[in-house]
Amino acid sequence: MTSYHKPDEKTLQGLKDVANKLRINSIKATCASNSGHPTSCCSAAELMSVLFFHTMRYKSSDPRNQCNDRFVMSKKLAFVDVATGSLGQGLGAACGMAYTGKNFDKSSYRVYCLLGDGECSEGSVWEAMAFASYYQLDNLVAILDVNRLGQSEAAPLKHDMETYRKRCEGFGWNTYVVDGHDVEELCKAFWQAQQVKGKPTCIVAKTFKGKGLKNIEDLDNWHGKPIPKDRVDDLLNDLKAQIQVPNKTLSPELPAEDAAPADLSTISLSAPPAYKKGDMMATRRVYGVALAKLGQSSQRVVALDGDTKNSTFSETFKKAFPDRYIECFIAEQNMVSVAIGCATRDRTVAFASTFAAFFSRAYDQIRMGAISQSNVNLVGSHCGVSIGEDGPSQMALEDLAMFRAIPTCTVFYPSDAVSTERAVELAANTKGICFIRTSRPETKVLYSPDEKFEVGLAKVVRQSDTDQVTVIGAGVTLHEALTAADTLAGEGKNIRVIDPFTIKPLDASTILTNARATGGRIITVEDHYKEGGLGEAVLAAVGEEPGIVVTRLAVSGVPRSGKPQELLDIFGISAKSIAQAVRQTFAN
Amino acid sequence: MTSYHKPDEKTLQGLKDVANKLRINSIKATCASNSGHPTSCCSAAELMSVLFFHTMRYKSSDPRNQCNDRFVMSKKLAFVDVATGSLGQGLGAACGMAYTGKNFDKSSYRVYCLLGDGECSEGSVWEAMAFASYYQLDNLVAILDVNRLGQSEAAPLKHDMETYRKRCEGFGWNTYVVDGHDVEELCKAFWQAQQVKGKPTCIVAKTFKGKGLKNIEDLDNWHGKPIPKDRVDDLLNDLKAQIQVPNKTLSPELPAEDAAPADLSTISLSAPPAYKKGDMMATRRVYGVALAKLGQSSQRVVALDGDTKNSTFSETFKKAFPDRYIECFIAEQNMVSVAIGCATRDRTVAFASTFAAFFSRAYDQIRMGAISQSNVNLVGSHCGVSIGEDGPSQMALEDLAMFRAIPTCTVFYPSDAVSTERAVELAANTKGICFIRTSRPETKVLYSPDEKFEVGLAKVVRQSDTDQVTVIGAGVTLHEALTAADTLAGEGKNIRVIDPFTIKPLDASTILTNARATGGRIITVEDHYKEGGLGEAVLAAVGEEPGIVVTRLAVSGVPRSGKPQELLDIFGISAKSIAQAVRQTFAN
Repeated sequence: MTSYHKPDEKTLQGLKDVANKLRINSIKATCASNSGHPTSCCSAAELMSVLFFHTMRYKSSDPRNQCNDRFVMSKKLAFVDVATGSLGQGLGAACGMAYTGKNFDKSSYRVYCLLGDGECSEGSVWEAMAFASYYQLDNLVAILDVNRLGQSEAAPLKHDMETYRKRCEGFGWNTYVVDGHDVEELCKAFWQAQQVKGKPTCIVAKTFKGKGLKNIEDLDNWHGKPIPKDRVDDLLNDLKAQIQVPNKTLSPELPAEDAAPADLSTISLSAPPAYKKGDMMATRRVYGVALAKLGQSSQRVVALDGDTKNSTFSETFKKAFPDRYIECFIAEQNMVSVAIGCATRDRTVAFASTFAAFFSRAYDQIRMGAISQSNVNLVGSHCGVSIGEDGPSQMALEDLAMFRAIPTCTVFYPSDAVSTERAVELAANTKGICFIRTSRPETKVLYSPDEKFEVGLAKVVRQSDTDQVTVIGAGVTLHEALTAADTLAGEGKNIRVIDPFTIKPLDASTILTNARATGGRIITVEDHYKEGGLGEAVLAAVGEEPGIVVTRLAVSGVPRSGKPQELLDIFGISAKSIAQAVRQTFAN
Repeated sequence: MTSYHKPDEKTLQGLKDVANKLRINSIKATCASNSGHPTSCCSAAELMSVLFFHTMRYKSSDPRNQCNDRFVMSKKLAFVDVATGSLGQGLGAACGMAYTGKNFDKSSYRVYCLLGDGECSEGSVWEAMAFASYYQLDNLVAILDVNRLGQSEAAPLKHDMETYRKRCEGFGWNTYVVDGHDVEELCKAFWQAQQVKGKPTCIVAKTFKGKGLKNIEDLDNWHGKPIPKDRVDDLLNDLKAQIQVPNKTLSPELPAEDAAPADLSTISLSAPPAYKKGDMMATRRVYGVALAKLGQSSQRVVALDGDTKNSTFSETFKKAFPDRYIECFIAEQNMVSVAIGCATRDRTVAFASTFAAFFSRAYDQIRMGAISQSNVNLVGSHCGVSIGEDGPSQMALEDLAMFRAIPTCTVFYPSDAVSTERAVELAANTKGICFIRTSRPETKVLYSPDEKFEVGLAKVVRQSDTDQVTVIGAGVTLHEALTAADTLAGEGKNIRVIDPFTIKPLDASTILTNARATGGRIITVEDHYKEGGLGEAVLAAVGEEPGIVVTRLAVSGVPRSGKPQELLDIFGISAKSIAQAVRQTFAN
């Protein structure tokens, strides 16, 4: 084991000087943009100085290089690998990077994450704390910048450093409490962290908000405010006066070259779908099969789940590739953040699954993932009332609304086994957030194995020359629509049936063409609330077209537990309700 | 101080017998419904027996009485005061009940919350843990049923009771580790908890999943599964054989009668809105004014915020009624759960505020709040790109989509000071979830102080006999529409402008009437993404009407930081864009 060498005095002075330069720049930048957090920058100035000019190893000419140490700024607004600004999300992403470094890249790069004390009130921080110790991420260092002050008042623990220590240690972290403005102490703590095996390290740094700014340091009411113009010059002069070696250059150490670029270019099903039309198969089950096939074709495909793998069928992937499966336990926020972290710098193609309803838990993480331009795939099973007995808490009925409102998001809603396999394959190769909605009940295979699917391309699954209305369903309701079509055909009433395949983007052109061919009449039917789902997506697609009328069948009100078919009837989205709505149309 | 008396042997045997009767009933009930968690019931059988037949004080004939001790079943699917089934939410609601008991009701009732070990992975549990110790909720007892097994594998800490102890103590709780199947040990621990002042108590109970069921106890793969029919009889016979005094009746102690029913019937603004038409005023600022007026009229109005009170202006309420303000720090999930807890049994009318974007953090809690039929009011400030420099992480652009898809939810989007005051007043008196969307920029007062507002009633704010298009805006975009109307009038083009006031329910009738009067042409303009917001709500209102065409102006893609007016222009929702869209309509 190497022993610690205190940096020489010139280096220490250089680090102090860098800290004050950072203070100066933070004041200037936030004044220029009329927005920002200069006082929070000041509390972290020495932390950043030591990290970037002493501890971290990276190529400053190539900040995104795969071999570099990673840095995640969780506490404030900043883009690096992940966007922050909504608090408590950085550490989860850092966990994903550290897990990837240790287990997939098997590289020596380390991950540093700076958190504020205020954001430690977010539970997602403690989800990540538990995750990191469970997986022994000794390549991960969290730095808590305990500057005492929040936005509107002091943070709950103020400068109670011992309670921070207890919480971090209780969650299994190697913990050092340090003076966050003492560069030498910081150099030593970061060095010690590098020596620790089997545990992540937390550096709990006591700091002062606005440190170094006279009559601002440690005072209330300076959160997120640029310095008033008339006070800037004095403060800058104070800071400049403290810089002793203005031209000293400190350079980071270079990283070890032990991570190769990852090839994410050719991810495809290792074998085509193997189903016969008419076979019964739940799309949730197919998800596992498809993901295992992708895993066969690329080492870089990884899966995550939140203790629902035996329901979402991500366990099929786990059985095939146990080393590429990450159990995240019941912590959906952290699961999504870890997945985002795994996918940064194109190191992996990550699929995270849970019940679709439980992604509502991670909506802020998903929203921020889109802002980060993350490519992450989320798969939600157990959509709608068709799950049956398990009741409303387990039924996703707002997930389409949720994911449609995420920019960059592609929303897949496959209705049979063949299209589900293709949805999974397409998602792996589609940029942005992808969401795949899978269903619990077994439904018929509709397509032959060689059917081609594309994002934004709907399928007309039933048509005749005499169709008088176009019915659009997805998942179980597409099958209900086909059953209704049979019934209605017996009455001499023909309908056209469309499978949209993706809800976003929606194939407006196919929908419009068929709507026009059927007298401008559309009926949508969805196992989702009436707001924000398939029906409104269709309305949005045809809203600027005169002469098209859309009737929407969807779930209204809070549902209840019951047999699946019974619930489809009660909530008016079964074949019976569709047939009735069609008859109404014919009557008009 | 009283000393502990061990219950007599007959009572202890009675409690053991009750536990086995509970096991029997859980097996029967889950077999009958073909759904449920008998093995999780078995691990908690002694905990429930002791709580309900020895420790808790309540009127069994009146389980919802305001004086009763409360019980929150967080770990499994059950309705009591709050629905659970999505994990990790019960303790936050219990915190709200305990805070209310201690601080608003000043009553002696106590609150008990049963949690599973698997759900302790949810960060929301630790948000609640921090909250309860910060507010010294010594009337709150959490019981962790550590039965080791999750849904798909063992929970991360398995039976590591000492780590549970460290975490709970680190979060400031008085903690006992006990044998969860030993009724005497449980009686004692609950008694001890009652003696502790200034701290909540956590009882960490080591248990076994499926306890008492031969060849099922402590085994994998029994989560959430009814017992197979062919094994039921043997198991029931085993359990029956252990019951020694089948007819022994244990009755709960009655509660102290120290909480009166709360009168929530007459909550109104203590004074009418005091603004002049044309005054400039931000709706977020008005929120604080209005809430303080409600607080004046009713002692039962309470406010919560997540360290944004100086931005949402809930601080105006805090200044007026510091004892009725709950600072929840940066933990939005817990804030919503606490608010839901405060509102149970109609004890308070609770308003919780933060940036609207950060309610995405609590979407699962909001979803479950609707399932619980909770009456809670959520107020989100800083909507849309019009917040300006603070950037996309702070801009709510999906909140309307999110809240519209919540059943029971009323969505207010007031556009001036007068209507904001009335929205706050109406929300206090409207059942279900209420969401009020407030804006950051100052906008003109549009209405006179005596203008009447109703849920679901839109206002036509500008009209003439020659209007050729109806423009619907809300918040800043309503004011942009009015500016556009002035510009267009100068060109001889008149438009009608509608303020919807509530987005859900939307006043379809007013919109339809005016759309028909303006040639069937509608333009919607919203500071929100295109999906799920005002535009789609309008489409949904007119979708079944032939001959109406809707053009939607909304934010597309991830926005960026900038000056508010600049961003309205860039994203095509400013007066300029509206005027352009109207000219296009005239041209067609």
